[in-house]
Amino acid sequence: MSVKITGTGSFIPSVIEKNENFYNHEFLNADGSTINSSNEVIVDKFKAITGIQERRYIKEELLNSDIAFFAAEKAIQDAKIDKETLDYIIVAHNYGDVKHDSEQSDTVPSIASRVKHLLRIANPKCVGYDLLFGCPGWIEGVIQAKAFINSGIAKRCLVIGTETLSRVVDKHDRDSMIYSDGAGAVIVEESSEDGGIITHETATFALDEAHFIFFGKTNHPEITDQRRYIKMYGRKIYEFALTNVPLALKTCLEKSDYNIHDVKKILIHQANEKMDEAIVKRFYKLHGLPMPEGVMPMTINLLGNSSVATIPTLYDMILKGQLENQEIKKGDVILFASVGAGMNINAIVYKQ
Amino acid sequence: MSVKITGTGSFIPSVIEKNENFYNHEFLNADGSTINSSNEVIVDKFKAITGIQERRYIKEELLNSDIAFFAAEKAIQDAKIDKETLDYIIVAHNYGDVKHDSEQSDTVPSIASRVKHLLRIANPKCVGYDLLFGCPGWIEGVIQAKAFINSGIAKRCLVIGTETLSRVVDKHDRDSMIYSDGAGAVIVEESSEDGGIITHETATFALDEAHFIFFGKTNHPEITDQRRYIKMYGRKIYEFALTNVPLALKTCLEKSDYNIHDVKKILIHQANEKMDEAIVKRFYKLHGLPMPEGVMPMTINLLGNSSVATIPTLYDMILKGQLENQEIKKGDVILFASVGAGMNINAIVYKQ
Repeated sequence: MSVKITGTGSFIPSVIEKNENFYNHEFLNADGSTINSSNEVIVDKFKAITGIQERRYIKEELLNSDIAFFAAEKAIQDAKIDKETLDYIIVAHNYGDVKHDSEQSDTVPSIASRVKHLLRIANPKCVGYDLLFGCPGWIEGVIQAKAFINSGIAKRCLVIGTETLSRVVDKHDRDSMIYSDGAGAVIVEESSEDGGIITHETATFALDEAHFIFFGKTNHPEITDQRRYIKMYGRKIYEFALTNVPLALKTCLEKSDYNIHDVKKILIHQANEKMDEAIVKRFYKLHGLPMPEGVMPMTINLLGNSSVATIPTLYDMILKGQLENQEIKKGDVILFASVGAGMNINAIVYKQ
Repeated sequence: MSVKITGTGSFIPSVIEKNENFYNHEFLNADGSTINSSNEVIVDKFKAITGIQERRYIKEELLNSDIAFFAAEKAIQDAKIDKETLDYIIVAHNYGDVKHDSEQSDTVPSIASRVKHLLRIANPKCVGYDLLFGCPGWIEGVIQAKAFINSGIAKRCLVIGTETLSRVVDKHDRDSMIYSDGAGAVIVEESSEDGGIITHETATFALDEAHFIFFGKTNHPEITDQRRYIKMYGRKIYEFALTNVPLALKTCLEKSDYNIHDVKKILIHQANEKMDEAIVKRFYKLHGLPMPEGVMPMTINLLGNSSVATIPTLYDMILKGQLENQEIKKGDVILFASVGAGMNINAIVYKQ
């Protein structure tokens, strides 16, 4: 018996926010001081490091739970299953539903309950809950689904990663350009085929790292309200990720019967192109190898960092043939890996 | 091999908010209309139905994650375990950290990461995540811990239910008198003893019921800001719970090798004393029996409804001999049951 992903779906929001749209923002340093560069220079530098040239935002009238539903519908259709046979709906997110005109997160009822409602699933034995685990939430949801299947309390789970970071950004912070909206969903189920989830690895670093990504004040010193926004210590995260993610990938791979030469693709959470390259290069270096070309498919240039949605969206796009020069074939060994708020890290060795 | 609770702890906030403190509130109906009764009459009627005469609020300077930490420390101490041996920290809540002077929920990093940070746990293999599942979140966390243990990915988990509903109440809503703050924690682990979690049952009703408990506007018609508060359709919840909770308890008990006569105590989520009595009476009626006296220990009169914290706090108080005329002895068969936002219902048959 294996545990496999049998269907995928994603929702890419329709509003395209180009880098040029940030030219008229008043960016300030975290201490409120002025940045001694023009916005054009700031944006160019940002693009060079992160690789991001545009990102997607949801329309004003939509909510996080709506786009989770859109992605879920597609995954159910793709897996060709009866939605009433789902045992779990696991929704990874971090900010709940934040309305366009509000600063409050709405998490009651859970996003999972809202999605189940929108899907019109009647079966009360389909249990819906939300999982908060930073950007690695979707991978962790897949790992939890596997645990439920292995322990005998589930056979089929819908796992969604959905986030609308556009609703929690500080427009006076350069980092606001990183964040994006999106939703990705998969069906995880018991399968008689071989492969699927081979090994997995998770870690939470909270001793010194807990507040590397946090909810903080605007950079604008004259705005003194209590409103908080997504904030991060980019440099600390970079160093943390570069040290710990390659090791987590290595441990996860070593626990499997596969080796570095078997790995066809690495689907890594995308927050910063340069950081991702450095991580994957170091992972290969740990094995005395150069990073193979094309091993790390990327969507960050057009989709930005949509948190929990990034990896399932990327995976869906590759399987559906929507990413140029990228494919995953039956039997391919791939790695999923993520790092984010918590600080949490996780990885999966997966055989397609 | 069994899965048992080996330690408990709880935190009861120090601020006592008596019913009399609500005498000067301006209560209004949901449609904004005036209530044609004095506050004394409203409060007396409230007390007669819910059983609540006072509730607890946390001090202004505290947060949800702080009280989760206080309860967790006690549970770890009670179980006499090394905190570094924990495989999971599962925190059930619904609103995250809401500061006294803020309306925003802060959920990044997760409350689990904050608790792990406060506990000074260094081991990165101790995975912390948050679970949003309405009031039944703590029971669901215990069920998830059991699944992780049964599937072989954990041996020892800390499961916390923590909530500060005082931070999300509408003072113009009579229902605000129900809500309270609190935190309860347990250690769930693999055990060579018999008993522990025997059977469990979970259901999510979202077709018509998803929004029975929701985040809504103040009852005051002249306050037109976007701020939302915890809200519920009390009558609908009452009918829903009375129909479905006794059946869930019955199903859960039937799956075990025990029968109704084995049940020593029912620890049920407390939102309304009359509703809880009606539920447990109906559960016994389904077995052709009257409800035995003392089978349903209650704390609601002094502690109100602290959501996910209610059951672990109640359980901890009984085990520590803090509840008059109530005890749970080794070998006793007890039921845990909860109902809340989602709408979610769950139950556990547990042998002490």
